[in-house]
Amino acid sequence: MLDLPQPYLLFLADVAERGYAKTAFGLRDWAAERCIGEYALPGGLSLDLPRFSPREAYAAGARALVIGVANPGGVISPAWLPALLDALEAGLDLIGGMHAKLNEIPDLAAAAARLGRRLIDVRTPPPDIPIASGKKRAGKRLLTVGTDCALGKKYTALALVRAFAARGVDATFRASGQTGIMIAGGGMPMDAVVADFAAGAAEMLSPDNDPDHWDVIEGQGSLFHPAYAGVSLALLHGSQPDVIVLCHDPSRAVTLGFPGYPLPDLHEAIDLTLRLGARTNAAIRCAGVSLNTSQLSEAEAARAIARVSATLGLPVADPIRGGPVFEALVDACLTAESSYERAAS
Amino acid sequence: MLDLPQPYLLFLADVAERGYAKTAFGLRDWAAERCIGEYALPGGLSLDLPRFSPREAYAAGARALVIGVANPGGVISPAWLPALLDALEAGLDLIGGMHAKLNEIPDLAAAAARLGRRLIDVRTPPPDIPIASGKKRAGKRLLTVGTDCALGKKYTALALVRAFAARGVDATFRASGQTGIMIAGGGMPMDAVVADFAAGAAEMLSPDNDPDHWDVIEGQGSLFHPAYAGVSLALLHGSQPDVIVLCHDPSRAVTLGFPGYPLPDLHEAIDLTLRLGARTNAAIRCAGVSLNTSQLSEAEAARAIARVSATLGLPVADPIRGGPVFEALVDACLTAESSYERAAS
Repeated sequence: MLDLPQPYLLFLADVAERGYAKTAFGLRDWAAERCIGEYALPGGLSLDLPRFSPREAYAAGARALVIGVANPGGVISPAWLPALLDALEAGLDLIGGMHAKLNEIPDLAAAAARLGRRLIDVRTPPPDIPIASGKKRAGKRLLTVGTDCALGKKYTALALVRAFAARGVDATFRASGQTGIMIAGGGMPMDAVVADFAAGAAEMLSPDNDPDHWDVIEGQGSLFHPAYAGVSLALLHGSQPDVIVLCHDPSRAVTLGFPGYPLPDLHEAIDLTLRLGARTNAAIRCAGVSLNTSQLSEAEAARAIARVSATLGLPVADPIRGGPVFEALVDACLTAESSYERAAS
Repeated sequence: MLDLPQPYLLFLADVAERGYAKTAFGLRDWAAERCIGEYALPGGLSLDLPRFSPREAYAAGARALVIGVANPGGVISPAWLPALLDALEAGLDLIGGMHAKLNEIPDLAAAAARLGRRLIDVRTPPPDIPIASGKKRAGKRLLTVGTDCALGKKYTALALVRAFAARGVDATFRASGQTGIMIAGGGMPMDAVVADFAAGAAEMLSPDNDPDHWDVIEGQGSLFHPAYAGVSLALLHGSQPDVIVLCHDPSRAVTLGFPGYPLPDLHEAIDLTLRLGARTNAAIRCAGVSLNTSQLSEAEAARAIARVSATLGLPVADPIRGGPVFEALVDACLTAESSYERAAS
């Protein structure tokens, strides 16, 4: 498990696309007590948190700057370097979760060594991940899956854990990506694991537990994604979920960054996930759909939720909006009666 | 591309299970001119090649000892170390293809440094693998897929390349695993790539080419394998195959090393592969089945081939046995008329 210096200053750099700022938004929304403010470069987004320079943030109590943005290749732009060096000079450690490692950037490594600061990469997998065994583990598991990246799999898992806890159900959020790991304080950076060990890493993330305990596992990517479907399948097989919740953004028509790839039909997405997931847990079922309606008005959101629910015959809700439909989705997760029948394959 | 010292002495260690000696058998059968002999420890298999100690092999011209066996975790057993040190002393370089790297074993690294020998790991991926783009590439592609590991995907690809060449069709064998890389002299060790980049690695393995050129790509794992399905899906998506050939061993009932996992029905395996593969190449089709009949008599093999062919309505052959049925399978690979209809999904 990680032991991260806190509280955080959230760094947004010059990233203008909200889909690439998942880490910053996730920390703001789910670990607010650890986030003292934000720091963006010209052209960057805002989280509507207090704006601080690294020096001001340190004076206000911050102890680490978290790189809250990512881009498709997972690299650290040279344009960000002066700001990161400023943060080290100001007294902050750096926390990153990209493929590119902070300590592999010579200027940062030299400054951190000179100043006695830490460069912490939460995307570095633990050593000694085993090959998956495929063996059934005790306890209950829920996996959030998606029609694309960056549309609410982590938020849905976090909201379900809160809702389970509110009902007195023993549940743990299991983080599979960098932001979730920062929120949870531990987890498995699935996309950074060597491919042969990815299903084994998913098994490790969610070990044997009490029969009534729920692991609520953050999904990654999508089985329909032309770059990341392998990660999604390894996570599905290794998680052996009893329950899946499909996450979807009705305002998105094509895969983010892949214009030639329309999002799948929801029926097809559920059916394919159940068909593949049944290989390691024959009792897998779909409890319903988590709809990201952040681009819709309240009235539009209610209509979209009702429409998708009627089409699929399943509970549908936006966990961020909550309400009775979300409670119905929680019901369906916890009770097997609401299971969705697999299409004959 | 790799530049490996040759010829090889093939090291079989103490491994008794033929399924874990794929590298040694593959080199014997497909790069015979580079294999001077074999070297086993007590309890190890034989390839029916001349048996040499490392010193005898060096005297006979060998310049490298190839570790021709693997085990589930990809580790190098401490029991093998004295033999490997003997080989270095005798003048041989070491070539390995396991997850465990030769140069991370202190005794080997020290001996190699002292003696001026090379420790070559063919399972180390090249740097700078991109995230997959999902963009269609020019040229034709065939991918061998399987109902399990270690049942003939590499052999089938190699046999098809030979058959294509015999018909004057321009074709290249694309190796995705350690043995194939040793045979081909280059390729992509798919299972050692970080999961997020696995589909990108598959795209890199089979770049743009002439419209009439065929890349015949060695498959990895199986979409039904509880540990390796993610690798298989990334390779399928990134390869964007026009044609798949399903590889199966009719004498195997369950997944090798995973007794709780029966092998899939062949109809289901073809249908699932086409359904998933269509995401990056809508024109994907199945040309037929490659049946590994090495455990059967000639008469039994002919009956098994006829039975599976009748059941599926597709060409079926054992490429190692060849014959008219294999020529029919080659026909089906090269001509779109024999395509297999996808089940409605």
